[in-house]
Amino acid sequence: MSELNSTYTEMAGVVGELVGFHRRFAGRAQSLPCACPLPSREAVTAIAGNLRSIIFPGYFGNTEAQGESLRYHLGASLDVTVRALEEQLTRGLCFGCAEPEELSGCGLRARELTRRFLERLPEIQRLMTEDVEAAYEGDPACTAPDEAILAYPGIYALTYHRVAHVLHGLGVPLLPRLISEIAHSDTGIDIHPAAQIGKRFFIDHGTGVVIGATCIIGQRVRVYQGVTLGAKSFPLDAERRPIKGIPRHPIVEDDVVIYSGATILGRITIGSGSVIGGNVWLTRSVPPGSRVSQGGVRYDGFESGSGI
Amino acid sequence: MSELNSTYTEMAGVVGELVGFHRRFAGRAQSLPCACPLPSREAVTAIAGNLRSIIFPGYFGNTEAQGESLRYHLGASLDVTVRALEEQLTRGLCFGCAEPEELSGCGLRARELTRRFLERLPEIQRLMTEDVEAAYEGDPACTAPDEAILAYPGIYALTYHRVAHVLHGLGVPLLPRLISEIAHSDTGIDIHPAAQIGKRFFIDHGTGVVIGATCIIGQRVRVYQGVTLGAKSFPLDAERRPIKGIPRHPIVEDDVVIYSGATILGRITIGSGSVIGGNVWLTRSVPPGSRVSQGGVRYDGFESGSGI
Amino acid sequence: MSELNSTYTEMAGVVGELVGFHRRFAGRAQSLPCACPLPSREAVTAIAGNLRSIIFPGYFGNTEAQGESLRYHLGASLDVTVRALEEQLTRGLCFGCAEPEELSGCGLRARELTRRFLERLPEIQRLMTEDVEAAYEGDPACTAPDEAILAYPGIYALTYHRVAHVLHGLGVPLLPRLISEIAHSDTGIDIHPAAQIGKRFFIDHGTGVVIGATCIIGQRVRVYQGVTLGAKSFPLDAERRPIKGIPRHPIVEDDVVIYSGATILGRITIGSGSVIGGNVWLTRSVPPGSRVSQGGVRYDGFESGSGI
Amino acid sequence: MSELNSTYTEMAGVVGELVGFHRRFAGRAQSLPCACPLPSREAVTAIAGNLRSIIFPGYFGNTEAQGESLRYHLGASLDVTVRALEEQLTRGLCFGCAEPEELSGCGLRARELTRRFLERLPEIQRLMTEDVEAAYEGDPACTAPDEAILAYPGIYALTYHRVAHVLHGLGVPLLPRLISEIAHSDTGIDIHPAAQIGKRFFIDHGTGVVIGATCIIGQRVRVYQGVTLGAKSFPLDAERRPIKGIPRHPIVEDDVVIYSGATILGRITIGSGSVIGGNVWLTRSVPPGSRVSQGGVRYDGFESGSGI
Amino acid sequence: MSELNSTYTEMAGVVGELVGFHRRFAGRAQSLPCACPLPSREAVTAIAGNLRSIIFPGYFGNTEAQGESLRYHLGASLDVTVRALEEQLTRGLCFGCAEPEELSGCGLRARELTRRFLERLPEIQRLMTEDVEAAYEGDPACTAPDEAILAYPGIYALTYHRVAHVLHGLGVPLLPRLISEIAHSDTGIDIHPAAQIGKRFFIDHGTGVVIGATCIIGQRVRVYQGVTLGAKSFPLDAERRPIKGIPRHPIVEDDVVIYSGATILGRITIGSGSVIGGNVWLTRSVPPGSRVSQGGVRYDGFESGSGI
Amino acid sequence: MSELNSTYTEMAGVVGELVGFHRRFAGRAQSLPCACPLPSREAVTAIAGNLRSIIFPGYFGNTEAQGESLRYHLGASLDVTVRALEEQLTRGLCFGCAEPEELSGCGLRARELTRRFLERLPEIQRLMTEDVEAAYEGDPACTAPDEAILAYPGIYALTYHRVAHVLHGLGVPLLPRLISEIAHSDTGIDIHPAAQIGKRFFIDHGTGVVIGATCIIGQRVRVYQGVTLGAKSFPLDAERRPIKGIPRHPIVEDDVVIYSGATILGRITIGSGSVIGGNVWLTRSVPPGSRVSQGGVRYDGFESGSGI
Repeated sequence: MSELNSTYTEMAGVVGELVGFHRRFAGRAQSLPCACPLPSREAVTAIAGNLRSIIFPGYFGNTEAQGESLRYHLGASLDVTVRALEEQLTRGLCFGCAEPEELSGCGLRARELTRRFLERLPEIQRLMTEDVEAAYEGDPACTAPDEAILAYPGIYALTYHRVAHVLHGLGVPLLPRLISEIAHSDTGIDIHPAAQIGKRFFIDHGTGVVIGATCIIGQRVRVYQGVTLGAKSFPLDAERRPIKGIPRHPIVEDDVVIYSGATILGRITIGSGSVIGGNVWLTRSVPPGSRVSQGGVRYDGFESGSGI
Repeated sequence: MSELNSTYTEMAGVVGELVGFHRRFAGRAQSLPCACPLPSREAVTAIAGNLRSIIFPGYFGNTEAQGESLRYHLGASLDVTVRALEEQLTRGLCFGCAEPEELSGCGLRARELTRRFLERLPEIQRLMTEDVEAAYEGDPACTAPDEAILAYPGIYALTYHRVAHVLHGLGVPLLPRLISEIAHSDTGIDIHPAAQIGKRFFIDHGTGVVIGATCIIGQRVRVYQGVTLGAKSFPLDAERRPIKGIPRHPIVEDDVVIYSGATILGRITIGSGSVIGGNVWLTRSVPPGSRVSQGGVRYDGFESGSGI
Repeated sequence: MSELNSTYTEMAGVVGELVGFHRRFAGRAQSLPCACPLPSREAVTAIAGNLRSIIFPGYFGNTEAQGESLRYHLGASLDVTVRALEEQLTRGLCFGCAEPEELSGCGLRARELTRRFLERLPEIQRLMTEDVEAAYEGDPACTAPDEAILAYPGIYALTYHRVAHVLHGLGVPLLPRLISEIAHSDTGIDIHPAAQIGKRFFIDHGTGVVIGATCIIGQRVRVYQGVTLGAKSFPLDAERRPIKGIPRHPIVEDDVVIYSGATILGRITIGSGSVIGGNVWLTRSVPPGSRVSQGGVRYDGFESGSGI
Repeated sequence: MSELNSTYTEMAGVVGELVGFHRRFAGRAQSLPCACPLPSREAVTAIAGNLRSIIFPGYFGNTEAQGESLRYHLGASLDVTVRALEEQLTRGLCFGCAEPEELSGCGLRARELTRRFLERLPEIQRLMTEDVEAAYEGDPACTAPDEAILAYPGIYALTYHRVAHVLHGLGVPLLPRLISEIAHSDTGIDIHPAAQIGKRFFIDHGTGVVIGATCIIGQRVRVYQGVTLGAKSFPLDAERRPIKGIPRHPIVEDDVVIYSGATILGRITIGSGSVIGGNVWLTRSVPPGSRVSQGGVRYDGFESGSGI
Repeated sequence: MSELNSTYTEMAGVVGELVGFHRRFAGRAQSLPCACPLPSREAVTAIAGNLRSIIFPGYFGNTEAQGESLRYHLGASLDVTVRALEEQLTRGLCFGCAEPEELSGCGLRARELTRRFLERLPEIQRLMTEDVEAAYEGDPACTAPDEAILAYPGIYALTYHRVAHVLHGLGVPLLPRLISEIAHSDTGIDIHPAAQIGKRFFIDHGTGVVIGATCIIGQRVRVYQGVTLGAKSFPLDAERRPIKGIPRHPIVEDDVVIYSGATILGRITIGSGSVIGGNVWLTRSVPPGSRVSQGGVRYDGFESGSGI
Repeated sequence: MSELNSTYTEMAGVVGELVGFHRRFAGRAQSLPCACPLPSREAVTAIAGNLRSIIFPGYFGNTEAQGESLRYHLGASLDVTVRALEEQLTRGLCFGCAEPEELSGCGLRARELTRRFLERLPEIQRLMTEDVEAAYEGDPACTAPDEAILAYPGIYALTYHRVAHVLHGLGVPLLPRLISEIAHSDTGIDIHPAAQIGKRFFIDHGTGVVIGATCIIGQRVRVYQGVTLGAKSFPLDAERRPIKGIPRHPIVEDDVVIYSGATILGRITIGSGSVIGGNVWLTRSVPPGSRVSQGGVRYDGFESGSGI
């Protein structure tokens, strides 16, 4: 009996040690006696999922609504989502506050940012409509735009990116990164919220794609699984810490195709209409219309693509 | 107060814009005044998960049932799953209907297809039993077949593939692709439902594996993470659109091993017993027994494998 | 009517076939008439998620608790988690039992192992605190340690690894592998529970990273997406079956950086302070301070990194 | 071990006996080989709860919606509820079908009935608005109409009754009775769906109130807990079975008050403005303006009420 | 800020006081250092609900199963329920243990009792089948036996009673009372598990019915709402504490009808075929065929009943 | 097809009508453009349930916690509950605000009231401990205090009452009434939050018990099912509306027993030690030690009780 009762008698000590976690990050953010809780990953996951349902009405969640009913469902879902976003934005803004006194303003600013995000939603939907068309037209295996919306990881990741990018542009801290990580976890596609991506972008398969923060991608660009658009190096400051905000990722112009496993590093420019072959390692700019390939494989003998 | 009440007054306008989404896809599938909702991704996720539990009875879900109880649980789960599948098949078939008049037949056809799928389940289970044995025998780290069933992403992805492949073979639209995408999202392994895969197939680690639609894979083949079996190019028709259905992915014969990161493109044949080294880029056929390796690494000095 | 009633009349036969699954694995583990159910993947998923919440108190789950309340929540969550772990450990130990007579001891041993795991939790937390600092300091895009905790897949995978590694070290079967697979599924990072990883380890982006069972990784090592630390080959015994337990994966010394897509195979040593370039294929040891790069890209011209 | 495995070996036999249940009701309803499942009590519970939320928008469920958002939520909830009602109506109609051939018409008739019920909802809301006002004005303890809506069991039971009564009037089988039983279970107030109840009806406390099927209740009537408006006897037919449909419950005219525990039986008339005292046993008609009391307690000395 | 952080600083003290609750019951049951938790009301609620679904297969829960599928669902549900019952029985038996040493036997005894309960289930179903028929035949408003099963609170309460009565007869502590209280809460009908109730018992409406522990009720008895079959007094022992187990509630012989609100107290006998009128207060035996009524209401003028 | 699409075309009109509900209550509470939502019945249900678990630690919810773990669970549950209470209190206070300007103070006042309620919890627990002892000692069928806590509706209702009474005493609007209604719905016992109830109060069976707002009940009082302690009448003001707050319900002195169905009305006093028989109708005071019974039943021949 005493055997049974003495189970885990060490628990109190363990709890005592574990609960002191925050003292280990002396002087940094959350170690402040902050009254505002951190953004909730679960809540942000729900918000992002709802936004996808709202951007593609009738494709996710309650797919039975039609006509006027669809309007009600969309409106109700948007209402719930926008309230939840406002709360998480408040938390995100509090998190970024240096001084407690600023706290009272976070709620008002969150409301204003939410309002501005709301106004941008139709624009995001328009962009996604074109991205879906690009997937439908670019992939011979795609039988209907609906299939791309329902089943293509590239469309999933791009929807989350376009949402995160607008929030990032509004100066929202933390949440854009959380949203892009949720898509990364589900698709294996990792797009930094700051990356600028043009219309009709298409990612096929997508696992392992990484697109860095200062990338600028033109229109009608296509990339395949395992493509990295990364930084080659970043300069250090006097204290040997990375200098932030310097353009360090590629510029990819219109109508470029990049095949699977290609690695493109540094602030270089891939000229419009270029085709970069699979597994290519590229660290310098190439002019428009280039055909770059690895070793013995040439890419100039075909017209359109090398999809899978 | 009025401040609070005026929150999101722009919502009605935003809802109005967003709800018009379908008008943007004039003339295509879901833009028809279709009475049948789209297949539900959530429902298909549940169906596929249940099928996995049914194929491996006692390994997932309620793992406490044994003997006669196991039969009850399996039967009850199968009953629920088969009903749900029939409903989603009806939706999937409606989705593919060109004309509203055809709609009435979708329910009957869905029932017939469900019945035929049901008959194929024991065969899928037999195939998976051998795949599990292949994993157990091929991986020195695997302590029991049960471990492969419970924890190997390759077994997960292959289970979903074998289910999706049978549905694809029955002519079911949309659902096979959804099922393979669910496995892709969870494992990073992307196998097109149309790919033909022989017995005792083993994928280790698996993240980034892509297997194209017209692949034909023999028996006892092993592949590692990051392997692509893709198309090199696809011919265009007079309107410069890809011609569908042409064989364009590799044929991999029996007993081939392909190491991590290898990219094999085009309708080429990898002869039986060949070993393709890691990160190799291969676009032409190789005869049986070949050893292909990148740069300075040779593969002919060892017998069995280069697993991780 | 009879039409409707005859639906799926073949079900009884299908159930009969499917339920015979276990007879196909004659003579191996779970085919014993075992009274103890298999570990539940769902339960292990919950346990691992709770442990992450406990290691980073206040970051996941109920983020509103503070001060003394945080202690209550942490204690309550730990109590629930530790009970659940004990149950799953009992199942895991039963699973490994060769003989039914051993069964009665599994419960007592599970309790003892749980107690020992509990004592290691503060140590895991201390290690993770340093890993978080390494992410914060190593990534110019990371605005606060909290961001790394909440959103970095590398931190997620490493948390699960450090938990799985302790359980593996205690001799627990099956569960460590399940835990590492859960992290693999969510992050695309596949670390074998047996791998030894030093302090301040940082994985950026991470999709496609594979770290083998006998790897030994030093302190302050950084790796990027798609890096493989694998085995080149493994010797076979007289029956041509792989010999287990032989060191076959790389040793990576302190302060090494390995860029995206690099493949490093075999029991070789990467000397301290070395930099391995992206997509490099490496199968032999390199001395401390080496700069290894693919083709025309040199890495000696920059100071600190080539992050993305 | 065998001890453990032999657990509940008798289960198969027990299941075999239990599953034969339907054979015990030879020749009656559900013993037909009916293809349509019974209405689901869970589904009807959800439908009735939703209808309450819809009739009192903003009081139950998501109470945060306001203005235009409230319209979206109400519309979305109504859409879901009306679909669910149509399905349960189909089941209820099938249930009442004598012959399998009639089955095909049940779906169409359910749709038509659902449409007609939908049209009656605003009328139900108007009646309930007046009932709420009656509760607010009649009970000195009621601080606001909102309190009556949120917390008064009489309002709960009456809402469900007014819904069930409309469905009963449309000829819907089984569902009205289920709805009134749900309210009975939650409030202790048992009102037969067929009972006719006028405007501004108020039940206080309510536990034990029973109102029979052929009751006719006027306007502004108030009753307290434990009041029975029942049948005194019912005539038998030649086979000594009760003859159905004969008026056998009281008529209660306008402005009557009936205090707790009173039992009023038979097709008698309580004249308008009468006051029936607590625990009174009454089986004959009384003229308008009557004061009926038990034993030594007189009721003519007070003006308005004897509430609790 | 400090304002915010000091919220509920008194919580620790309050927790400290509340957690000492058990010390207040020194020397009684749960104050022992018992290793076995109390039975869970939630678990018992689920078990009782499942048993109802099992006794009436196809009426509750998944109502879509038919034929062979129904067998699977019934078997699976029974398997889950019986396991859960065994666990709660173990807890219930532990609870009754005076000495810790007895603890080890509780699990074995719970298994044996569960097995014996299981064997009694078909008998309970047979009794309930007749009770349903009695409701169908006795209530002119009942359109089909199915309606009684789905919607009659008397059938609900009697189902739970017959289950609780068998458990009580097996000597199970605590659980029978919990089960009868769950039915009491949902129906307002309070039947002590020890009460002996014959075949074809019918309770109409039922709110407020109380049936005491030593009641013996014959066959074909009908009672209405508000009927009490109670004890008039109970003798005290030398310490002025009630002597347990003495027969103190009424014996009601076959074919008796008791109308609403009647109160029958003490170990008296209501002779077969008697009719007890509404609100009657009865404390002495009456011979077979009696007609007992309150004040001016006579019951001899009608044949069959006074239902509502 | 058009048939299908035109389903429920009248929905927009119905929604439009229903959403105008609030306009029907012009000039009263919630019709204000209030920014604060109503208290949520679901939230209050959860709060009250949690408080019961907290007052009886280890009896509800997670019953497996013991010792130090129990403290964690209690603390965590209390933390969650107290936060939720504060939010609902804020809503309740807003609801009572006459003027929008007062709104800003509601949050602060809710926090203060929550704190004061928190301090009262140990006192509520102490009272309930004595009530449980009274049930255990007063009911010969009660085998242990634990049984009363787990299964007695009287203990349930009294727990909720003692919580609601403290909130009522703090001046909290709406919530106390909601809490007492929740208990009323589950037990059939309706106690007004304002009623003053002394120590060791015991209600047996309980269905139909009603205890009015201005009741004052002494110590060691016992009541049975169906007892009403109500108002006989209430005086009207010049506008013929009931005058609030006047004492109008009975005073029940110490050690009184009131048997089932007794109705006691008006501001009368039942002297200490009196016994009121079942179904008695009483509207005038009785001196201490009275024995009041209906008709031919005398109560002076027995010592202790007439329980059931």
